[in-house]
Amino acid sequence: MKRDLFEKIKEEAKTYFKNAKGSHDWSHVERVYNLALRIGKKEKADLEVIKLAAILHDIGRKIEDETNGKIDHAEIGAKMAKEILEKYNVEKEKIEKVVYCIQTHRFRKNKIPETKEAKVLFDADKLDSIGAIGIGRAFLFAGEIGAKFYDKDVDVKKIKEYSRDDTVYREYMVKLRKIKNKMFTKEGKRIAEERHRFMVEFFKRLDKEVEGKL
Amino acid sequence: MKRDLFEKIKEEAKTYFKNAKGSHDWSHVERVYNLALRIGKKEKADLEVIKLAAILHDIGRKIEDETNGKIDHAEIGAKMAKEILEKYNVEKEKIEKVVYCIQTHRFRKNKIPETKEAKVLFDADKLDSIGAIGIGRAFLFAGEIGAKFYDKDVDVKKIKEYSRDDTVYREYMVKLRKIKNKMFTKEGKRIAEERHRFMVEFFKRLDKEVEGKL
Repeated sequence: MKRDLFEKIKEEAKTYFKNAKGSHDWSHVERVYNLALRIGKKEKADLEVIKLAAILHDIGRKIEDETNGKIDHAEIGAKMAKEILEKYNVEKEKIEKVVYCIQTHRFRKNKIPETKEAKVLFDADKLDSIGAIGIGRAFLFAGEIGAKFYDKDVDVKKIKEYSRDDTVYREYMVKLRKIKNKMFTKEGKRIAEERHRFMVEFFKRLDKEVEGKL
Repeated sequence: MKRDLFEKIKEEAKTYFKNAKGSHDWSHVERVYNLALRIGKKEKADLEVIKLAAILHDIGRKIEDETNGKIDHAEIGAKMAKEILEKYNVEKEKIEKVVYCIQTHRFRKNKIPETKEAKVLFDADKLDSIGAIGIGRAFLFAGEIGAKFYDKDVDVKKIKEYSRDDTVYREYMVKLRKIKNKMFTKEGKRIAEERHRFMVEFFKRLDKEVEGKL
């Protein structure tokens, strides 16, 4: 694919992030793009598919937010991406591969990434939720939904996700600390384990500070 | 002061935090209370004054938020605290000391904490803005005001604080990394330096992750 065609598609993708919230803004897309390329090279995956899938993977998120989660951003985003890529006359086979990556980047029971490229996108996207970046984004997201700071005095199974009673503690216990075990690629796993270690250290330290030990 | 009287005042203070945002909720007050006691003991300060000042120091914040910063929460909070303490017949001299702590906990040119107790409250309050707690609160606050994640591609002097263009990067560069040099007490300084080191490490790491080096 010619560079200027890719740039056009990228600019179009960017328009869907005009008023995006900080936790899922264009900088997230850029980081996922860089990570996906990095992992994709190691995995000897189709980098053109990965590049397109990465820049388009979250274009449906705005619609999911506007419908309070009723419309799945992976599902609608895949459809939107298909239309964009068809408009630019990208070859059909490539479009199908990109669309599949976007559909499966979220991990739902019936949507497990099975191609190499889909696994790479999945890993890259999840890696942006852990480490120092993941910590920052988790607190930023908590602020966006008006949630609490770090209330540990809760039953994490009973708190409703995205509610005002939510807390980064739940997000960490239920989601973030499990991400390293969900990686599909070897390089993704390696990066995840390193980021995971720092994240665990951060939350241990946070506990100590809160308890007045530091 | 009898324990149950203190508990009554504490319960009254708590009512001002019912719908407080996560970055400045009652858990902040509790942490400042614990820190202030810890530092106050080392400084051989009047712990009763410190306890009262700590639980009451942010009761004016809601009004500051509602008036978009036009009313200073330290100023209005001091007045509110005076009324509460008078209602419970706390001795006049003690009230004056507590009120002074609250007035000066914010550091404004004409309001520099000069008593031992005011210095302790100031240090305790600022310490809750650095270290792992400070990192979490900074991102949480950014989320609350709809700011960006961590955009470094900005002129930190030109961004308006509390605006949607704001970023934790500005908060870190302009405020957080300078806090350790603003401590008044020896123990505050010691805790600040330790927390500062971790915070610097966190932001260095964040940069590396964003640059794809980790």
